[in-house]
Amino acid sequence: MNDGFAKLPKPPYYAVIFSSQRNEHDEAGYGSTAQRMVELAQEQPGFLGVESTRGADGFGITVAYWESEESILAWRRHAEHTAARERGRSDWYQHFELRVAKVERAYGWDKK
Amino acid sequence: MNDGFAKLPKPPYYAVIFSSQRNEHDEAGYGSTAQRMVELAQEQPGFLGVESTRGADGFGITVAYWESEESILAWRRHAEHTAARERGRSDWYQHFELRVAKVERAYGWDKK
Repeated sequence: MNDGFAKLPKPPYYAVIFSSQRNEHDEAGYGSTAQRMVELAQEQPGFLGVESTRGADGFGITVAYWESEESILAWRRHAEHTAARERGRSDWYQHFELRVAKVERAYGWDKK
Repeated sequence: MNDGFAKLPKPPYYAVIFSSQRNEHDEAGYGSTAQRMVELAQEQPGFLGVESTRGADGFGITVAYWESEESILAWRRHAEHTAARERGRSDWYQHFELRVAKVERAYGWDKK
């Protein structure tokens, strides 16, 4: 099983690269909201997939893949997502960086 | 301290998004080679920064940032990096995916 990997179409498509440093508070509240956001994103038009991981030091990277800039902007305007981002700033994150990029080529490898 | 974050110029620049599933073997050998690759990449023309994390399940994401496609291709041809990639396939990874993307916009936030 390689459940962590997004199954994506051929490029081009878009990537939203979100790197973040969690604080040490409210792991339960953070975890349930993060899971809800993934479920909600999967219902949005243009969502292609997501990969996410976080180390024991609280530094994490999530990359969400979308068909278009328009689908990214629509997700950004989603009311429940907007409320979750506000909680991220007030309660969960020490620092984050977000980069929006157009994927031009891709390559995968799986051990036989 | 937020050591995990790359300090990047304004876009545009390129991102190489590498997601991987480690096997359970050779943590010491993998760790020293991974550290060496970061040090070596930092010496290459066009290298801008890197962010990397891996969870307890062995799923990791590393995003390396470069000035141009040319700098990415030159790093790919680097002999020591090529040898390390071969060891990655033979010894360390179960599965990986690599996506090359052009970063078009970026936004950061830091708690005061």
